[in-house]
Amino acid sequence: MSQNSNNARQNALDYHEHPIPGKTATALTKPTATAHDLALAYSPGVAEPVRAIAADPADAYRYTNKGNLVGVISDGSAILGLGNLGALASKPVMEGKALLFKKFANIDAVDLEIGTQDPAEFIETVRRLGPSFGGINLEDISAPRCFEIERALIESMDIPVFHDDQHGTAIIIAAALTNALRLQGKSLDDIRLVLVGAGAAGTATLNLLSDMGLNRARLRVVDRVGVLHTELDDLPSHHADVAAETDDRTLEDALKGADVFIGLSAPNLLTPDMLMSMNERPIVFALANPDPEIRPELAHSVRDDLIMATGRSDYPNQVNNVLAFPFIFRGTLDCRASRITPAMKIACVEALAALAREPVPASVLSAYGAADLSFGPEYILPKPFDPRLIERLPPAVAAAAAADGVARMPYRPYPNATGA
Amino acid sequence: MSQNSNNARQNALDYHEHPIPGKTATALTKPTATAHDLALAYSPGVAEPVRAIAADPADAYRYTNKGNLVGVISDGSAILGLGNLGALASKPVMEGKALLFKKFANIDAVDLEIGTQDPAEFIETVRRLGPSFGGINLEDISAPRCFEIERALIESMDIPVFHDDQHGTAIIIAAALTNALRLQGKSLDDIRLVLVGAGAAGTATLNLLSDMGLNRARLRVVDRVGVLHTELDDLPSHHADVAAETDDRTLEDALKGADVFIGLSAPNLLTPDMLMSMNERPIVFALANPDPEIRPELAHSVRDDLIMATGRSDYPNQVNNVLAFPFIFRGTLDCRASRITPAMKIACVEALAALAREPVPASVLSAYGAADLSFGPEYILPKPFDPRLIERLPPAVAAAAAADGVARMPYRPYPNATGA
Repeated sequence: MSQNSNNARQNALDYHEHPIPGKTATALTKPTATAHDLALAYSPGVAEPVRAIAADPADAYRYTNKGNLVGVISDGSAILGLGNLGALASKPVMEGKALLFKKFANIDAVDLEIGTQDPAEFIETVRRLGPSFGGINLEDISAPRCFEIERALIESMDIPVFHDDQHGTAIIIAAALTNALRLQGKSLDDIRLVLVGAGAAGTATLNLLSDMGLNRARLRVVDRVGVLHTELDDLPSHHADVAAETDDRTLEDALKGADVFIGLSAPNLLTPDMLMSMNERPIVFALANPDPEIRPELAHSVRDDLIMATGRSDYPNQVNNVLAFPFIFRGTLDCRASRITPAMKIACVEALAALAREPVPASVLSAYGAADLSFGPEYILPKPFDPRLIERLPPAVAAAAAADGVARMPYRPYPNATGA
Repeated sequence: MSQNSNNARQNALDYHEHPIPGKTATALTKPTATAHDLALAYSPGVAEPVRAIAADPADAYRYTNKGNLVGVISDGSAILGLGNLGALASKPVMEGKALLFKKFANIDAVDLEIGTQDPAEFIETVRRLGPSFGGINLEDISAPRCFEIERALIESMDIPVFHDDQHGTAIIIAAALTNALRLQGKSLDDIRLVLVGAGAAGTATLNLLSDMGLNRARLRVVDRVGVLHTELDDLPSHHADVAAETDDRTLEDALKGADVFIGLSAPNLLTPDMLMSMNERPIVFALANPDPEIRPELAHSVRDDLIMATGRSDYPNQVNNVLAFPFIFRGTLDCRASRITPAMKIACVEALAALAREPVPASVLSAYGAADLSFGPEYILPKPFDPRLIERLPPAVAAAAAADGVARMPYRPYPNATGA
């Protein structure tokens, strides 16, 4: 353990502990200075909105914070890359997610850690919390449990439910891939794509890319057992769905001639030889964190016709979920959509990708110091602090919601869309 | 409907709706301006507190907001005096309660409305939310369900659980009664007390007064059926517990010669004749809201040896729960007590009663205009905006917790104890 990494660890702990523990608190949005104020906020005044909501449940969006409130909910079964450490240990992550919702989109968010890992119990618990919230962001729930949980909640709740580890990651990957394909002169419907790690994020990525036109016949998915193929028995359904009719058995087999590698797996899995065996103008998204499937320096030393992305902020093209979840929820809440449809995710993908192709404002350039932020192999995704994200993504998402018939009111941007 | 009351209703609705719906929001307590800040708040820095909490669950109090966070939770089965209007309609009340926690004690609070009224389902839902919070404030849950729910949660959770409709009300009544008895020259162990309305608040009040030395042999409890007596069959257990061996059958019977009337019942139930029949120097707490069991003007016109309290802010001696719940939770959280014991409630009662017997600071006098706030028949309880409440009550509660062996750390006051 180096002195530097010891310092980084201590800085992270200090940030969380001082001057008060944690990262989020309650703010009051109405006057409370006088007894008269409190008579409006609580008894007797509060009886009026209670009566109104009892008469018309939609009035909860008018008189309470429901319409701007997202529950950030986990069972702690798959915390970051750390594994199943339980509900309590997931609390710093969920608070951090709430912080990002507020910071980037002025969405009020409450972290809830649920002390059960039984899927049926988790589902019924979250469902019963429905009256409190305008939307539910599920987080750090292990696969394949997360698929069943999200599906059951989407079907039974009247507010949008979104498992960010799945769809947030999928949206960013799809936006980055859209731009990388454009730069490499390739297209979704004829690439050979190899995806390693068919868990929550990988499965959702394949579903979203399929909705966008990916040719699944040319897809190879690699998991711990090697290439998922149709002669394997007893695959879980999310693996059976992507099993290929192929003689490829290893990652090495699958990568020969491939156009795109998407890794959501383990450090250093992609060797220089494998990279050399890929098709011309390859795309490598090495998203294992903190150590990618191949180090960018090594990859670029092997090939110079490469476009690469990682999960790290210290290399170009960081695949970072904060580019999507605050904004897709903002757009969803601001038209009171009942769910988040594939078309809304694709609208978010396209708005993100389009934004990266535009010139970057001076304020963003200065926030990111010396980096060259011109559309090209080292800039295929916008930066998180780009103020145009909140301007572009939510209306695009809301327009797709309206077109899909799931918007329950016309899009109306929430005040002060960046809150922090 | 008068123009005035129409205006008051519209003011209450406007307060809740504008400029943004609701009364509470998320605040961020740590820096978020730069990518470096976010790398501490979320990935990769957040992994450090996660690992620490996984190794030692008590570190959740060090690195997250758990220790200052109270869940304000209802099923909407008994909202104010409005009845069972369901979880969603209770949201304005729960948000209002969260606002009061923040305003008076800098406690962060999250309102949760649970969409089930089955007690077993409600209990298991709240229990599973335990990792998220430092304490649970139950609210607006109907009797007798509230007794079973609170008991089950206290027994199964490792954080304090407090049903404010029961114990908050009981504490204020007990403090007011302590001072009224002192002024009238009477004492708990020999008064004849008549309580009308043995629901959540009434039952808790009787339990607390018993713990403080009330002579239960002289107690009469009146409910819809009249006096609860030992020859009645099939009483629910909270009524059987207070049934008297007596020939009294009506409120009129019970009040003859009584020293104290506590009403948690219905408007105008206490007639001038009944009041006349009470013992000398009577005490009348007419707490039905908004219309008390007897109007103060009428009561004082009948007897001039009376001390009276109501639930209304426009008469002296308002029994208002905000005098207790922010402060008993503040003291409980600040010594990390595992539960709220009878001795902690009594400490809160005594600190409240003692405060009312002290001279009032000029700042409080000016906040309350022309009112005479000298200890006496028209001032037996402190005022909610009295800044001494937060100084006196929490340490008294924490000292009782330590003496009871339920404090898990030495008392340490939270910063900026009034937050708003």
